[in-house]
Amino acid sequence: MKEAWGRWGDADERGALNLIDGATVRSAAQLVRSGRAISLAQPVSAAMATPKSRPGVMHFMNRDGGDYAAGRRRPGGFQFADDTILMPLHSGTHLDALCHCWYDDRLYNGFAATEVRSNGSSKLGADSIGPIVTRGVLLDFVALVGSPLEDGRAIGLDMVRAAMARTGIALRAGDAVLLRTGWQERSSAGAPVDFDNEPGLDVEAGIFLADAGVSLIGADNFAIEVLPFPEGTVFPVHQRLIRDYGIPLLEGLVLSPLAAEGASEFLFVAAALPIRGATGSPINPVAIL
Amino acid sequence: MKEAWGRWGDADERGALNLIDGATVRSAAQLVRSGRAISLAQPVSAAMATPKSRPGVMHFMNRDGGDYAAGRRRPGGFQFADDTILMPLHSGTHLDALCHCWYDDRLYNGFAATEVRSNGSSKLGADSIGPIVTRGVLLDFVALVGSPLEDGRAIGLDMVRAAMARTGIALRAGDAVLLRTGWQERSSAGAPVDFDNEPGLDVEAGIFLADAGVSLIGADNFAIEVLPFPEGTVFPVHQRLIRDYGIPLLEGLVLSPLAAEGASEFLFVAAALPIRGATGSPINPVAIL
Amino acid sequence: MKEAWGRWGDADERGALNLIDGATVRSAAQLVRSGRAISLAQPVSAAMATPKSRPGVMHFMNRDGGDYAAGRRRPGGFQFADDTILMPLHSGTHLDALCHCWYDDRLYNGFAATEVRSNGSSKLGADSIGPIVTRGVLLDFVALVGSPLEDGRAIGLDMVRAAMARTGIALRAGDAVLLRTGWQERSSAGAPVDFDNEPGLDVEAGIFLADAGVSLIGADNFAIEVLPFPEGTVFPVHQRLIRDYGIPLLEGLVLSPLAAEGASEFLFVAAALPIRGATGSPINPVAIL
Amino acid sequence: MKEAWGRWGDADERGALNLIDGATVRSAAQLVRSGRAISLAQPVSAAMATPKSRPGVMHFMNRDGGDYAAGRRRPGGFQFADDTILMPLHSGTHLDALCHCWYDDRLYNGFAATEVRSNGSSKLGADSIGPIVTRGVLLDFVALVGSPLEDGRAIGLDMVRAAMARTGIALRAGDAVLLRTGWQERSSAGAPVDFDNEPGLDVEAGIFLADAGVSLIGADNFAIEVLPFPEGTVFPVHQRLIRDYGIPLLEGLVLSPLAAEGASEFLFVAAALPIRGATGSPINPVAIL
Repeated sequence: MKEAWGRWGDADERGALNLIDGATVRSAAQLVRSGRAISLAQPVSAAMATPKSRPGVMHFMNRDGGDYAAGRRRPGGFQFADDTILMPLHSGTHLDALCHCWYDDRLYNGFAATEVRSNGSSKLGADSIGPIVTRGVLLDFVALVGSPLEDGRAIGLDMVRAAMARTGIALRAGDAVLLRTGWQERSSAGAPVDFDNEPGLDVEAGIFLADAGVSLIGADNFAIEVLPFPEGTVFPVHQRLIRDYGIPLLEGLVLSPLAAEGASEFLFVAAALPIRGATGSPINPVAIL
Repeated sequence: MKEAWGRWGDADERGALNLIDGATVRSAAQLVRSGRAISLAQPVSAAMATPKSRPGVMHFMNRDGGDYAAGRRRPGGFQFADDTILMPLHSGTHLDALCHCWYDDRLYNGFAATEVRSNGSSKLGADSIGPIVTRGVLLDFVALVGSPLEDGRAIGLDMVRAAMARTGIALRAGDAVLLRTGWQERSSAGAPVDFDNEPGLDVEAGIFLADAGVSLIGADNFAIEVLPFPEGTVFPVHQRLIRDYGIPLLEGLVLSPLAAEGASEFLFVAAALPIRGATGSPINPVAIL
Repeated sequence: MKEAWGRWGDADERGALNLIDGATVRSAAQLVRSGRAISLAQPVSAAMATPKSRPGVMHFMNRDGGDYAAGRRRPGGFQFADDTILMPLHSGTHLDALCHCWYDDRLYNGFAATEVRSNGSSKLGADSIGPIVTRGVLLDFVALVGSPLEDGRAIGLDMVRAAMARTGIALRAGDAVLLRTGWQERSSAGAPVDFDNEPGLDVEAGIFLADAGVSLIGADNFAIEVLPFPEGTVFPVHQRLIRDYGIPLLEGLVLSPLAAEGASEFLFVAAALPIRGATGSPINPVAIL
Repeated sequence: MKEAWGRWGDADERGALNLIDGATVRSAAQLVRSGRAISLAQPVSAAMATPKSRPGVMHFMNRDGGDYAAGRRRPGGFQFADDTILMPLHSGTHLDALCHCWYDDRLYNGFAATEVRSNGSSKLGADSIGPIVTRGVLLDFVALVGSPLEDGRAIGLDMVRAAMARTGIALRAGDAVLLRTGWQERSSAGAPVDFDNEPGLDVEAGIFLADAGVSLIGADNFAIEVLPFPEGTVFPVHQRLIRDYGIPLLEGLVLSPLAAEGASEFLFVAAALPIRGATGSPINPVAIL
């Protein structure tokens, strides 16, 4: 029996997002000061860096302005362009649904892994997530350390506490915690992207946040957790947070523009595409200051 | 020279969304009462109804629970599922970017249609939209008329005024106006979906909203505007609103749950995927009450 | 233990195609008289009819002449167009690989069905088929009956024998037998395509051909076998021929141009795309007269 | 006016393939000696090397054996697996259709480049190619030189003549000439694939073959022609052969197994998928010895 299993009923598919209630949303809305809305998403394109294990994004135009230049005409003067995308659901800035990973053949809340088949998952899919509206809290490790964290640097409990102390606020149930490690901005500054090495949470720090009642953990790296993994483990933070605590993970965030605003708390809104039975979704989360 | 061309500078790519400023966002945030967040998006799946002219959505599992049931094992106990989607960008609930349609070979703000090529549009793409945070206003024609509007029913100026009067509020610059025609809920109630016939705005009513300074128009139908078109025209509302007024359109909304809440104004947040040069994006807009 | 299991060794993945040897190919080559080569494939396009259970073909241009018309220029004068296809492997004219279907959790030759996973099949995939060069024999039921067979018409042993008698030749081990039912030509003549009803082989006739030593059975219908199935069965001919006899099936052929030539035997060449672990492949089989 | 334009009529879309007639096919069929059929195609998979400018192949299982292991059951005992491929049409072993490249806004036979639009080409597409059945002639430069040719090595007229002399045969109108440079086998032996450097034909040698009346030129490299190009040119052999001579090119062949047979001439059969308006097609060409 795992930490969050059964906590919101045997049929629950939303996990820690249940920690957000009307009061959470109301108080988060009161954080709006300047009215600036900041996107936390990377642009999506075929040029995005992609890990070896996943195909890249493809963007196809079914109709475009070139067709009209080439002589096509439409009745009524109407001209249009239209397109199709092929994208791995875990590319760029995306949310991991609770059916994305597990161990011992059981998903979050004890659902059988055999629920996840070739036509998608019948439980815990991206369509069961719903809009996420809550307080966002930025833990800025780049500011804490004075530079982007180096690859392989584990963010442990001490660092989390130190970053929290910098904010001057205390975590509350339902918070969405966003971790700025600097990995993404180093990459976008031109360094080649290495998906096998990155700074990120260690298991102890992950569980600390989970026990504090966060509803969501996001980061500007590829996998929230430190890579490479501690010897003998594979994605141990994913295993514990997603499967045992029911916490969705939000990966590939762009956090430096938010950090530049200087605010540690803000209204956070993120709504995954409700793709039936999907293990994740591209997403464009918004911080409203 | 068209209504909004040059209004926000010759290089502007955001059109009427420029009407939203910090004050708009701040006052919209103050509309939050109960803290209920409501998704306005349809579920995305291969089973979605799709117009003849567009391919359907395909959702492929690259790895799933069946593979483990079939004997695959991973080191470290980690098990996962992973997927890829192929989707036309104008399927389901989606936002039309300003490069989606035009006439006379010129896009919004005078950009040449030849900017839109096989690798996407170099101007006015979905990546130039940014997060939309503003006041949402629901115009509920189903409530006004007492039933879903019939196919082919044009929503004219009088109906818009009557629906506004029901709300007891006045439009303000930057508002996102959402039109409930009942088309979507009729479809989802099992009627076969006919993409060639629907209730929707006529040109005069569309221009009335545009002149009132709305930043966005959304609807629960396929095309915002009435289908079939008036004789001799093809998507005339699209042509005027998108190309001349720079107003993005939000199509395929699910509005009956929002209508059931009884609120006519609310905090509205919608963030398209920032797909480089895309003519649109699937989206999960949120009403926060 | 099934008819062909173990016949060519426990590791065999080619099934009845093993019945083709050098002598088969040499004598087939001697059938060439006029030197006319006839394609037996349907054109591939997004406009193809597709059964409900499968997505349609999509053909995307990554670059086209419209881009140059829109102003793109390339160094060195070079201009090009380039494209990408998405296609279900069992659409249009295609070959069923031996991993395509089975029963009782065992594939042809006793391989476990668990060999077929989300990354393809590790056994009996399209890449194990190799080029098929042999004598083709046309059984023309349209000519036999005087018109295309009606939907639901079972082609039984008597009809197969009668069609053979018309040809004046005897089946030999290794032959590729092609059945003209008229289904495809009826469809292409404009009748709407009904994938649930078609004339085709019954089980007894299928086993007769298998026992005669054919290496391949093709037809101009969707499924070789008659639809709807006899009560209580689902694709019984597929089950027996593919899984028990190791005979690949070639579906969706265009046979009327070949029939118009009046030849019952010919050099037959068909080479599936060697897609690793695929359950089938689009194919363009050729009859050389 | 270019070399082959108008030669087979103003409406011609098959170019040099018109040089193959019944007599060509009949005499090619007489080359069959052992009856061995050899595939000249690379396996197709997501693991294939792909040039930077093109997306990779993706192979998705819509249903697989894992689903049955996970508990899915079908009526009638029937079980199946089914898949979908996404592939750039110029990946792996493929044929360039005559609409693939051009210069000065005119395609082969003078067709306008504006015929090639987002929905494919209305002229010279892969669907106009038809089955290719003719004599194949192997020019084995690896055997000539004693080792795979180095990258950047231009195959000039002298080398072509020397390789021809080794075969002891003379080119005839309609021949398909296949060039073994060793590039592919070097790559498959584990060297990383560099799509910007390869041995291949120079323009003079290409035109020599074209003037000799070949119907098709194939090679075991990426682009038939030498890379990098001579200064100031871009794909000059493509420009001349495809656009001016109407000769389709067959790229990415696997030729070492054929070379190992020791035969310089053979029956050659290759049938592109008849994809409407496509600029090329994956293909599995066969040499029959």
